[in-house]
Amino acid sequence: MRKISIGIIGFGNIGCGVVKILQQRKSLLAQKIGVDIVIKKICDKDISTKRDVTVDKSLLSRDVNEIINDPQIDIIVELIGGINPAKEFILAALKKGKHVVTANKALLAECGNELFSEAAERGKNIYFEASVGAGIPIIKSLKEGLVANKFSSIFGIVNGTSNYVLSQMSKEGCSFANAINQAKLKGFAEKDPTLDIEGIDSAHKLVLLTYLTYGRIVKMKDIFIEGISRISSSDIAYAKELGYEIKLLAIAKKEVDELEVRVHPTFLPVNHLLSSVDGVFNAIYVSSDLAGELMFYGPGAGQLPAASAVVSDIVDLTQDIKAGLFKPTLNSIQDSSIKSLRQIDEFENKYYIRISVVDKPGVLAKISGILAKFGISIASVTQKEKLKAQVVPVVMVTHEVKEKNLRSALKMIDRLGEIKEKSVAIRIEGV
Amino acid sequence: MRKISIGIIGFGNIGCGVVKILQQRKSLLAQKIGVDIVIKKICDKDISTKRDVTVDKSLLSRDVNEIINDPQIDIIVELIGGINPAKEFILAALKKGKHVVTANKALLAECGNELFSEAAERGKNIYFEASVGAGIPIIKSLKEGLVANKFSSIFGIVNGTSNYVLSQMSKEGCSFANAINQAKLKGFAEKDPTLDIEGIDSAHKLVLLTYLTYGRIVKMKDIFIEGISRISSSDIAYAKELGYEIKLLAIAKKEVDELEVRVHPTFLPVNHLLSSVDGVFNAIYVSSDLAGELMFYGPGAGQLPAASAVVSDIVDLTQDIKAGLFKPTLNSIQDSSIKSLRQIDEFENKYYIRISVVDKPGVLAKISGILAKFGISIASVTQKEKLKAQVVPVVMVTHEVKEKNLRSALKMIDRLGEIKEKSVAIRIEGV
Repeated sequence: MRKISIGIIGFGNIGCGVVKILQQRKSLLAQKIGVDIVIKKICDKDISTKRDVTVDKSLLSRDVNEIINDPQIDIIVELIGGINPAKEFILAALKKGKHVVTANKALLAECGNELFSEAAERGKNIYFEASVGAGIPIIKSLKEGLVANKFSSIFGIVNGTSNYVLSQMSKEGCSFANAINQAKLKGFAEKDPTLDIEGIDSAHKLVLLTYLTYGRIVKMKDIFIEGISRISSSDIAYAKELGYEIKLLAIAKKEVDELEVRVHPTFLPVNHLLSSVDGVFNAIYVSSDLAGELMFYGPGAGQLPAASAVVSDIVDLTQDIKAGLFKPTLNSIQDSSIKSLRQIDEFENKYYIRISVVDKPGVLAKISGILAKFGISIASVTQKEKLKAQVVPVVMVTHEVKEKNLRSALKMIDRLGEIKEKSVAIRIEGV
Repeated sequence: MRKISIGIIGFGNIGCGVVKILQQRKSLLAQKIGVDIVIKKICDKDISTKRDVTVDKSLLSRDVNEIINDPQIDIIVELIGGINPAKEFILAALKKGKHVVTANKALLAECGNELFSEAAERGKNIYFEASVGAGIPIIKSLKEGLVANKFSSIFGIVNGTSNYVLSQMSKEGCSFANAINQAKLKGFAEKDPTLDIEGIDSAHKLVLLTYLTYGRIVKMKDIFIEGISRISSSDIAYAKELGYEIKLLAIAKKEVDELEVRVHPTFLPVNHLLSSVDGVFNAIYVSSDLAGELMFYGPGAGQLPAASAVVSDIVDLTQDIKAGLFKPTLNSIQDSSIKSLRQIDEFENKYYIRISVVDKPGVLAKISGILAKFGISIASVTQKEKLKAQVVPVVMVTHEVKEKNLRSALKMIDRLGEIKEKSVAIRIEGV
């Protein structure tokens, strides 16, 4: 049986998972694919700490060059994360004629063009199934299963931490601070959860989803990103009353000849399937022109789910290597009907608005007047009972409105003497 | 660019969809895969009726041998459905060295062993993505995306007609007869919907899902099959009260060293993601040991969804052909930890039971006595108010109980003088 050797860079949580699977499923995989996958070398800065998997000590090295310069290694598996030195290692490996598997969404999002170009030039493949949705085969599905489709939109719940926090707030009515503390206690949030909570991680994944659906790598700075840290339990409660759940969505959406790419908390109708995705689970909801509306759901993180995806990439590469197949073009055909990225000011959405007003006669008339001035028409309005000291929330749902008009209107409203807190606006999708 | 020629057998609804996609996406596909897919011949008994796609008349033939005997055709696409003559055509094509794409779940379920063996002997691949869940890439995901996984269970809503009927009954409180009539009016049910409603179509698809997860082709006669035609609107109403939805599920489930394969209406907790799958949509919920709990959702039927899947199979085969890859073993590794199929009598489930009793003192004691005699313990019991003429429904939820014990108990209960209708029992899953 043909042997194909791999080198693993990064012997952390996912790296250990990959080793475990390749050990435990060695004969199953060999039977299925007719290739014996051999771990030739595992490299990490720390090779002395005990791991939850046992490997022959001779496999371990602190020197990444033992992998990069080994001509017998056909595939490198990069699992150290972060931009540097992961980028240098991958570029060096490509230059040495190796294929690459990585779970590094931040790196691909920031430097994808450079890495994919280098791979294309060298006739090598970079596979990255674990970088979005862990074990959910979303990347393979978009690249291969939906190969003939064009896409009108993709909505992703792609950050488990944020989804856990929003689910807890929705289910238990707790505050954001309380929910994030619970997440930390359960190991679902990092000590500093900024990247997850503020939508950066979701945006990294959105870059990859946009690449696979629209064939272009969008720059992080061109993505509108808003996190969930300002979502209050009252917004969650009003959402429910109005028939919505709040989810942090990564959205790529074609509007005529423009593409919108954005990450923000979103009101989704409670009967939308994404609204039922709770806790640390991820789901990607795809609207395609041939296969229709599809959803892919699963755990968004974890050692074995991510390692399962990494191993499926390794398996695919063994088949490519056997066959001499070079497949980068599967990802990179630009949707030529898209002329430009739509700027945030031009986004059109329905909105949920919550305005905290002092309950005086005439205040609603003032607010309505300002909204009308900016051409914003209101689908529903609820003035809530007094909560404290004369301040009452006015909750509105708008019809479709241009972002810049909404912002201007709220700015003007927030300047009124009767307004005591910054008004809240959350985009509504899926209706 | 390399040209690969295909022959399409069956120019009906899906056949036209495949032709449409290959025409409209010709250059997109060529750019992505580096192969020019050429439709060399389309065969159908009827080549005169106008279709919703235009093809050169020289491509059409009534003689299937023009495809089977054409050495330039590398791939046949079988879209006529049914067992015969589809089986003969596929076997003949394999013998002539062609790869096969088919959407024919009935044929693969009935004759899969013979067809896959012939393909293996000839070193050819049979791909069948469109046979389960239309455009949902479930087959590719199980075969490739989850290649390293073992499976503890797979639950599928794989028949759109049945799911539409149950959804209508649940949402609108209508009767089965009313719901099936609505389905017919909307084109979601055939004139004779037996195959869909009685679970046969779901069982065909279950054979394929079981093959992909456990590596064995189960015989149709070994699948326990129960349809939805006896589900009443009152069962749906009680289900809701108890916190469940009723879904027709295709289930393959490993229990220690035995495999259960069954199709039946099932009580699913309302917060189970499958309970939110409404209308003609399909969803397959997979429990895997590495990637965890996954769900794949999308339209379960339709010209373009099915054709999208057929085209993805054709694309995969072009890559196999370019590379000389032969991949049947991806499907067929038996899970050796499974010793046998579990017989229906030995299934263990929680149950919903509805017993219609004449409201006399002591009747509940008699029923409870019989259940106790068979070791059936009750998790909850609700005796409903009188509906008519002294007959009241007693609704119970059991703890885990062996199927044969439950059946024996119900048989004895139904013989009591106080019981006026055959009792109803529906299995509960997902808790």
